[in-house]
Amino acid sequence: MTPKSDFPQPEFWYPHFVSYGETDTMGVLYYAEYLHVFERARSFCCRERDMSYAEMERRGLILPVREAQCRYRAPIRFDDAILVRTGIAEWARASITFHYEIWDREKTVLHATGMTQHACVDGSGKLIRVPGWLRELFS
Amino acid sequence: MTPKSDFPQPEFWYPHFVSYGETDTMGVLYYAEYLHVFERARSFCCRERDMSYAEMERRGLILPVREAQCRYRAPIRFDDAILVRTGIAEWARASITFHYEIWDREKTVLHATGMTQHACVDGSGKLIRVPGWLRELFS
Amino acid sequence: MTPKSDFPQPEFWYPHFVSYGETDTMGVLYYAEYLHVFERARSFCCRERDMSYAEMERRGLILPVREAQCRYRAPIRFDDAILVRTGIAEWARASITFHYEIWDREKTVLHATGMTQHACVDGSGKLIRVPGWLRELFS
Amino acid sequence: MTPKSDFPQPEFWYPHFVSYGETDTMGVLYYAEYLHVFERARSFCCRERDMSYAEMERRGLILPVREAQCRYRAPIRFDDAILVRTGIAEWARASITFHYEIWDREKTVLHATGMTQHACVDGSGKLIRVPGWLRELFS
Repeated sequence: MTPKSDFPQPEFWYPHFVSYGETDTMGVLYYAEYLHVFERARSFCCRERDMSYAEMERRGLILPVREAQCRYRAPIRFDDAILVRTGIAEWARASITFHYEIWDREKTVLHATGMTQHACVDGSGKLIRVPGWLRELFS
Repeated sequence: MTPKSDFPQPEFWYPHFVSYGETDTMGVLYYAEYLHVFERARSFCCRERDMSYAEMERRGLILPVREAQCRYRAPIRFDDAILVRTGIAEWARASITFHYEIWDREKTVLHATGMTQHACVDGSGKLIRVPGWLRELFS
Repeated sequence: MTPKSDFPQPEFWYPHFVSYGETDTMGVLYYAEYLHVFERARSFCCRERDMSYAEMERRGLILPVREAQCRYRAPIRFDDAILVRTGIAEWARASITFHYEIWDREKTVLHATGMTQHACVDGSGKLIRVPGWLRELFS
Repeated sequence: MTPKSDFPQPEFWYPHFVSYGETDTMGVLYYAEYLHVFERARSFCCRERDMSYAEMERRGLILPVREAQCRYRAPIRFDDAILVRTGIAEWARASITFHYEIWDREKTVLHATGMTQHACVDGSGKLIRVPGWLRELFS
């Protein structure tokens, strides 16, 4: 298996080592930890574009998760080095949707796929349009 | 708002207090923690039927998560007492699907909805049919 | 083994079920999760005295952890029902110290002992004296 | 403030970004998460010496934590880039003790200090002497 080319662009590949604390009794990455890893992958995307989520908040943009989904295909074990392919699949009026794929280091095994949808809100929690600077950041 | 009656039966209401460690900088239950809470709700269902997940494993049944999904509707804060309504929505040949609703203690606010789909596998990881005793347990 | 009587009084016994998500590849409660459990035990003490940590914060008292320590004596497994014995061992001028013991349900195995020391600070982060109402709450 | 030179040698500096999921309602790294970070720092030490914890286990060495301690000096916030200074402070007959210091990226603020003591056991859980190859790895 190899990564398909129809993934949303630009794409980012966040590298992650699975720690003991992320695994469970079955010896695999616990299913809730995938969402933690997705968050780390999102932050990685921002940093790659010289932006931080903290900086976004200072600019008045908060991106609370509205929906999250993950499909678990092949277990991930302790100390596995994984790569999280990440991109923004959809730009709606007041929300954005990230897609994720988790691959092994050699990019031959697709361990999981997932998505998170985020509302765009300001500091007071009011829904706002996706800011232009955010679009430019990932264009 | 009130709980609708079309929820899969039997239904179980797992009570949970939100701890500091489950919240994040926004002051709300972190989005990955919902999946931890779902797991606690599943275990609760089993205990209510005098079964434990550990006992299931001794009987040769393992239920790895194949897919998880959560829709976040209203934030949940530190120290909130929540109720997780839980039921099995689908019995397939070799998998079962749980549905979840997270309500406040008064059952007037629906904070989140979610699902988890579980494969039925034996100790060696081979897919097996849903055992009869599991069906009976929740009938 | 049985619980010794020299534990700080009043003492509280918080019951907890170990979830899958709290365990690791070794099949035991992950060492960091003990501190989560300690926090749940502290909240339990407050609730037993009709107080919540959220209410404490509204009264202007915040109790950040200054030090935490845990000694792991006997592993705790998935689905184990444990009891966390909790009490306040020391009342200093501007800090309090909790002690913890984790027992099995039958109170015959002492799984772990621990402590957390908390500074008393107000909303602005300034160190304050331990409030009288807090002392009374646990006397 | 600057890192003192009396830290156990060899020392390793593990870099870590604080994620949203690691923080709590107070907006800081939750106190239990420090132990997760310590574990990541230990794994980092091993990787720096071309060893993995998984490989250690294959060689029959397991290092369960016997005691953990952390002193919290200055809060760490979301998206902070921290450095975890790590070294083995004590080589006993059948246990080793790691020391940790958490610094900001500029190494001017000491956020926390900590330790973990690990028993050396074999696959069956029996206490064994610290293997020679482990000593050599960190000499």
